[in-house]
Amino acid sequence: MTPTITAFERSPDGGKGLARDTRVRWALEEVGQPYEVRLVSFAAMKEPAHLALHPFGQIPTYEEGDLAVFETGAIVFHIAEKHVGLLPEDAHARARAITWMFAALNTVEPPILDLSTAKMVEGDKPWAQERLPLVKDRIRVRLGQLSARLDDADWLDGAFSAGDLLMVSVLLRLRMSGILDEYPNLAAYVARGEARPAYQRAFAAQLAINSPAT
Amino acid sequence: MTPTITAFERSPDGGKGLARDTRVRWALEEVGQPYEVRLVSFAAMKEPAHLALHPFGQIPTYEEGDLAVFETGAIVFHIAEKHVGLLPEDAHARARAITWMFAALNTVEPPILDLSTAKMVEGDKPWAQERLPLVKDRIRVRLGQLSARLDDADWLDGAFSAGDLLMVSVLLRLRMSGILDEYPNLAAYVARGEARPAYQRAFAAQLAINSPAT
Repeated sequence: MTPTITAFERSPDGGKGLARDTRVRWALEEVGQPYEVRLVSFAAMKEPAHLALHPFGQIPTYEEGDLAVFETGAIVFHIAEKHVGLLPEDAHARARAITWMFAALNTVEPPILDLSTAKMVEGDKPWAQERLPLVKDRIRVRLGQLSARLDDADWLDGAFSAGDLLMVSVLLRLRMSGILDEYPNLAAYVARGEARPAYQRAFAAQLAINSPAT
Repeated sequence: MTPTITAFERSPDGGKGLARDTRVRWALEEVGQPYEVRLVSFAAMKEPAHLALHPFGQIPTYEEGDLAVFETGAIVFHIAEKHVGLLPEDAHARARAITWMFAALNTVEPPILDLSTAKMVEGDKPWAQERLPLVKDRIRVRLGQLSARLDDADWLDGAFSAGDLLMVSVLLRLRMSGILDEYPNLAAYVARGEARPAYQRAFAAQLAINSPAT
């Protein structure tokens, strides 16, 4: 059964691949699962029909027959459980890969999202410039720890997993800030993720919607 | 095999149950799994021995034989997969319960943690008072959506699940702020969680460490 995901009709990032549907597209491409996309406008995201699928009025959602789930981490996990390729078969290695999924979303992403909020939502506030270095330093604490753990490995724990997929996706948000380049092994890790053919296909698919003329 | 978790030697909250080991204790109590606790000082959390278990230098960690995992969401999920009682058996209901686990940690908790940061880390900054209402309003957006979804149900999707365990734990952080009481159905939901015997045992166990004299 072909699943259907939702994505922004017009992504706020203009096709840089930072909207969360890219994470789900990437997971589906890694496992070779074709999918349909339903585009949703900002207005429609707050309408009852979409809120029934996603109570927080966001994208992506995932529908497959009579199963409907939301929340990117849960969707990627569902895809990883259903197909081979995103989680190791060994039970302990699998538990560690799932650990990195949660770590990406719950420990590494929050300070990175704070930076987006500080710039985009509070960028015109009188405290914006003075506060920004504090926000960036909280990101550096996490990146320093992550960089130490990754060391010179290709991926976080053995073979590429859904944990890497989410961690690379989270770190990609930092590219424009320059902070990622302060950690050469993390920058190389992100580049390895982006170089995967499945990521390339996912990126191209979202770009085709957001920059149809290019 | 009895698992060992780590917890703060002295919790910053003085035993209010907001440290994340309480979430893991609660999950273990729900499924009836005895556990050992190793207490860790703030200094030891940043030492190599603990960083080998938890690269971000936090608690809790979970060790069971030669398996070691960190990240509260991943630990609760591991417990839920290993035992009966925290995830439904039906595949679709299970996927939805996992969705709520990620939603609690990745969508609802981040703005709530921002409030802690705004008060505890940036409380002495010149912008603290003017910025606080913005932070609180971002929490209200999420609580309003969550309140609408929960409606008059007891739990988020059918029977109590690991998704409720994490959502209640996340919302408990808000009690002192008074914001939770603006949403009577959410306040009642949290109270239902706290009333569970497993939560009571988990709370008492962490309190015994943090307030040994009481």
